[in-house]
Amino acid sequence: MVDQTGVEIISIGNELLNGRTVNTNLTLICKKLTISGVNVLRAYTVRDELKEIVDVLRFVLEQKTSSWIITSGGLGPTHDDITLQGVALALGRKISLNEKALEMIRGRNAELILTDARRKMAFLPEGATPLKNPVGMAPAVYLRESETNIICLPGVPQELEAIAEESVLPMIKRDAGDFFFVEGILWVQGLLEADLAPIILEVFRERPEVYIKSHPKGEEFGIELSLTVTTRHPDSSRELVSKSLDEISTRVLQASGSISSRRIVNHK
Amino acid sequence: MVDQTGVEIISIGNELLNGRTVNTNLTLICKKLTISGVNVLRAYTVRDELKEIVDVLRFVLEQKTSSWIITSGGLGPTHDDITLQGVALALGRKISLNEKALEMIRGRNAELILTDARRKMAFLPEGATPLKNPVGMAPAVYLRESETNIICLPGVPQELEAIAEESVLPMIKRDAGDFFFVEGILWVQGLLEADLAPIILEVFRERPEVYIKSHPKGEEFGIELSLTVTTRHPDSSRELVSKSLDEISTRVLQASGSISSRRIVNHK
Repeated sequence: MVDQTGVEIISIGNELLNGRTVNTNLTLICKKLTISGVNVLRAYTVRDELKEIVDVLRFVLEQKTSSWIITSGGLGPTHDDITLQGVALALGRKISLNEKALEMIRGRNAELILTDARRKMAFLPEGATPLKNPVGMAPAVYLRESETNIICLPGVPQELEAIAEESVLPMIKRDAGDFFFVEGILWVQGLLEADLAPIILEVFRERPEVYIKSHPKGEEFGIELSLTVTTRHPDSSRELVSKSLDEISTRVLQASGSISSRRIVNHK
Repeated sequence: MVDQTGVEIISIGNELLNGRTVNTNLTLICKKLTISGVNVLRAYTVRDELKEIVDVLRFVLEQKTSSWIITSGGLGPTHDDITLQGVALALGRKISLNEKALEMIRGRNAELILTDARRKMAFLPEGATPLKNPVGMAPAVYLRESETNIICLPGVPQELEAIAEESVLPMIKRDAGDFFFVEGILWVQGLLEADLAPIILEVFRERPEVYIKSHPKGEEFGIELSLTVTTRHPDSSRELVSKSLDEISTRVLQASGSISSRRIVNHK
């Protein structure tokens, strides 16, 4: 797992910390990266405040554990959309009108007047490249700081997803190379999680590259076990998961538990 | 807003960073705290790894910006449930069998054998107090480090919610004192977000204690504006929001937009 590409994600928006909005953007990005074999190491959620954005971005950059940082939110036209100011400040770069970004904004609807609020979305940190937003007005942004790639995505879910698919995932996958993520699922009944714990530990010790996570779903449903592995070869990922599934299944039956479902998920 | 109690939240679990699970626990805690007038300053999501838990918890403690830290996840019986080891390590405390926690676990079901996996959930950092889990087996944990209160909650949503209601919110509210959060909602049609941006800015400048956030919901639905304020008096919170709602409404109509709904939310 050591040489997998690492990503950290910074979600920006008061609505996430006020409990108004569930952060499905984070889940979506994490899922798409994980099934591409990319490792999301950590995530942060901060308020729409310049100091917050600057502090967290600097902190992540200083750690140097991730080759990619993705931010979401704060690219829109309102006064509290300040992600790009924050990024510029954190990197010690100026912010200036980017002609290509302005062209993208104009291209969305030629009849709209280029008010200050619309032009604002074209002010990018120096050295940044705008990424086309096929759904909304605000372009996404790519820039590189020393060894780290930084991507800023808008917070509107449909826009974030479209840009991730069209621009971001292809870039990160190219950088990451071919890794294959495989997940096996096992539903166990008749055992409590504490009874399953030593079984999981035994199987994990025999094959530590397969990560095993138990998700108890309440007595009537049982426990969902997720077995995941990422390797350079799809066949070996699949084989590793399959072996661990076998070994857990055998032990569950020996412990008088039962299995209602076993499958290997096809994530692509 | 300056003297509001600050909280930071650390969500622990690979499933959150693999995109398998949406972090509804975070949203739930944030919502309950916000409507109690408590300010959630920042949130972190980390993997089930000791170093990750230790690093992030130390980082938050060193910042000293929050008087409460809440963790969720990693209190269960499996080998990757290591939150309490992480907390102990971060604080330089030993971990030991807590008799009161053991009693709580035993009390859940006297017929269950106290296996190592069950006893594991009663190993708490020294000086910690177990909090009753009315739904599941693993007790939650409260401890204090210098000026900071730390709460560790289980990741199973029903358990987290029950403990939050029964133990955590009353503690934090007592510490925070009476603050009143009021939210006004305005649905605007016929204007794009970029056209609404200068209106929001004008009204915000006149009354900066009312935070105004726009949530564009697509052309057919329009834009949802959320106006929020927290003060020591419910009447003044309500009046501030009401005034800002008036001022935005007037300007939206002047700009040839329309308003389909206006209300003040009763969050309790």
